[in-house]
Amino acid sequence: MSFDYSGRISRVRAVMEEQGVDALLLSVGADLPYFCGYEAMPLERLTMLVISAADLPVLVVPALEAPRVVARPGVFRVHPWNETEDPLAMVEEMLRGAGSAALGDETWAVFALQLQQRLPGLRLVAASLLTRELRMRKDPAEVDLLREAAHATDRVVERLRTHRFAGRREIDLSHEIAAMTVEEGHQTAMFAIVASGENGASPHHEPGDRVVGSGDAVVVDFGGRMNAYCSDTTRTFHVGEPSEEYRRAYGVLRRAQAAAVEAVRPGVTAESVDRAAREVIEEAGLGDHFIHRTGHGIGLQTHEHPYLVEGNGLLLEPGMTFSVEPGVYLPGRFGMRIEDIVAVTTDGAERLNRSDRDLAVVE
Amino acid sequence: MSFDYSGRISRVRAVMEEQGVDALLLSVGADLPYFCGYEAMPLERLTMLVISAADLPVLVVPALEAPRVVARPGVFRVHPWNETEDPLAMVEEMLRGAGSAALGDETWAVFALQLQQRLPGLRLVAASLLTRELRMRKDPAEVDLLREAAHATDRVVERLRTHRFAGRREIDLSHEIAAMTVEEGHQTAMFAIVASGENGASPHHEPGDRVVGSGDAVVVDFGGRMNAYCSDTTRTFHVGEPSEEYRRAYGVLRRAQAAAVEAVRPGVTAESVDRAAREVIEEAGLGDHFIHRTGHGIGLQTHEHPYLVEGNGLLLEPGMTFSVEPGVYLPGRFGMRIEDIVAVTTDGAERLNRSDRDLAVVE
Repeated sequence: MSFDYSGRISRVRAVMEEQGVDALLLSVGADLPYFCGYEAMPLERLTMLVISAADLPVLVVPALEAPRVVARPGVFRVHPWNETEDPLAMVEEMLRGAGSAALGDETWAVFALQLQQRLPGLRLVAASLLTRELRMRKDPAEVDLLREAAHATDRVVERLRTHRFAGRREIDLSHEIAAMTVEEGHQTAMFAIVASGENGASPHHEPGDRVVGSGDAVVVDFGGRMNAYCSDTTRTFHVGEPSEEYRRAYGVLRRAQAAAVEAVRPGVTAESVDRAAREVIEEAGLGDHFIHRTGHGIGLQTHEHPYLVEGNGLLLEPGMTFSVEPGVYLPGRFGMRIEDIVAVTTDGAERLNRSDRDLAVVE
Repeated sequence: MSFDYSGRISRVRAVMEEQGVDALLLSVGADLPYFCGYEAMPLERLTMLVISAADLPVLVVPALEAPRVVARPGVFRVHPWNETEDPLAMVEEMLRGAGSAALGDETWAVFALQLQQRLPGLRLVAASLLTRELRMRKDPAEVDLLREAAHATDRVVERLRTHRFAGRREIDLSHEIAAMTVEEGHQTAMFAIVASGENGASPHHEPGDRVVGSGDAVVVDFGGRMNAYCSDTTRTFHVGEPSEEYRRAYGVLRRAQAAAVEAVRPGVTAESVDRAAREVIEEAGLGDHFIHRTGHGIGLQTHEHPYLVEGNGLLLEPGMTFSVEPGVYLPGRFGMRIEDIVAVTTDGAERLNRSDRDLAVVE
């Protein structure tokens, strides 16, 4: 996968100038691959791309990981460091004269503290304040990759609609779903939540030894990476016929999710999409049971800007991509969630996921 | 898995007092589960355990993840926050009056920067300066868990000695090894490097589409988590008979690894173990091709203190556990590495891995 890294670097330099930031320091997380195609290993040896106003960006990287780097000579230089060298001293040297720098949000705090101690006069800000301006506006090639990843997960969902759930442990189902995600074209399955029965009321449940039984609702929330871009979708399955209460609540959720997708178009605020879902659930008297925001941006990372949450007045623009995933959770009893990835178009929204959203009754 | 969390908290409070640190702030990474049994999700919503000198520690956690927390009422209290609340304000409130705090090394920099901005007078240091004093000295129950995890990977290695390598893609072999790691008892396979032919010269190679062929050496470095503790082992396989050159170099590596394990005992420095391996490889004229340190500590994390690297004068003590993993890498040609996890005993070392270290000739 190759993108116009030089163009992205030029654009972020314009944002740096606007915001009065002299250097951009990127380590673990998705900003780094966005600008140079290389992803840092999340380990204790420092990897850091230094983008300043003028010079060619420099990637400081552990020597033993340097063979992993795909060289892009006109885009950045590689500066490997050996085990007994001090990589932060290299970064410090490159920051000579800089008054301020933006540091990748997920950089390990230990490096932030060391950098601030060495350069007490350097004003450090979070890099996402700059990089989100680029990353949350996807170009058509990025939307295409997100669509392909979404369709791969849709194929997994279709397979699950005839899969056997009853008598299986959550953790085994989770492993199977992860394997299917790879079979359908992902390089990596990153997570596969399988939350059955009362576990369904825990939105980020860790799949465990619970055996799925008849009468259980099962929330399945999974995704991964395909050609560098992420997928994330949720469907809810029901082992045997659901109760009238469950079916009614699911109907509310279905309408809430549709209302939120319907609300998406350029010029509306991120929070208005959250409200659109929430109002439907509140009107049905279930408002206390929708305990999280409606969605999160998605791209090179599963969670990124923009967030669809009360208080976010950001105006949506074409090319923004995010999840729309309201849920209803009754502690000790059951849960349900429907999640699609949606892209803002010039006049509305495109659902990138198109698998069946009806409650699937399974065995 | 349950440990004496209260005892650990008492002991780290003694270290805090010694080092003049008023509070310990733990987020993503292994310090958090070490002290409270809960692991933070590596996402943008803040999870943070605040341990101060006297009060019961408080776990600030996103409300939607609170159901994941196993409550331990005498150990810590849980303070969930809702989507529209400000979790850092809660932490700030708890830090009132504190002059200094130690922040978990892997905490996202964005939180470190925000915290420092809100509390400019607060002196922040890296938590590992304190927590390593506890975590690198394993108690017998921890060594037992590391041994069990190591033996599970040994069983995978034994299976691999009769596995078919030729004609298979690295990435497919990697997925199979990950699956075997789970089959042999791990909850999670965390990585499975398969580096064949010239890729073997890249110590942290990302397995890809290369098809393993006759005459290739294949470095297999894999591990995961079993009952919270990590495994990490490397063996090198050879498809068909190796050349005389390869066999000779492998013999040097075998002796270097044995010399390093032989050097391990209480009272010697961490760097002396690195030197023991390096000297053997240097004497054979291959010193330039051993491009990384000899090992890293292992426990709740795959990489942790102590590091076996030149410059680390730390004295080894019984209960310390680490990898011993010299390697030889010839760019463009081949690589080789042998890695065992070793525990320091009262008078020497125990290899926790016991799978065959001879070069395995496979098909």
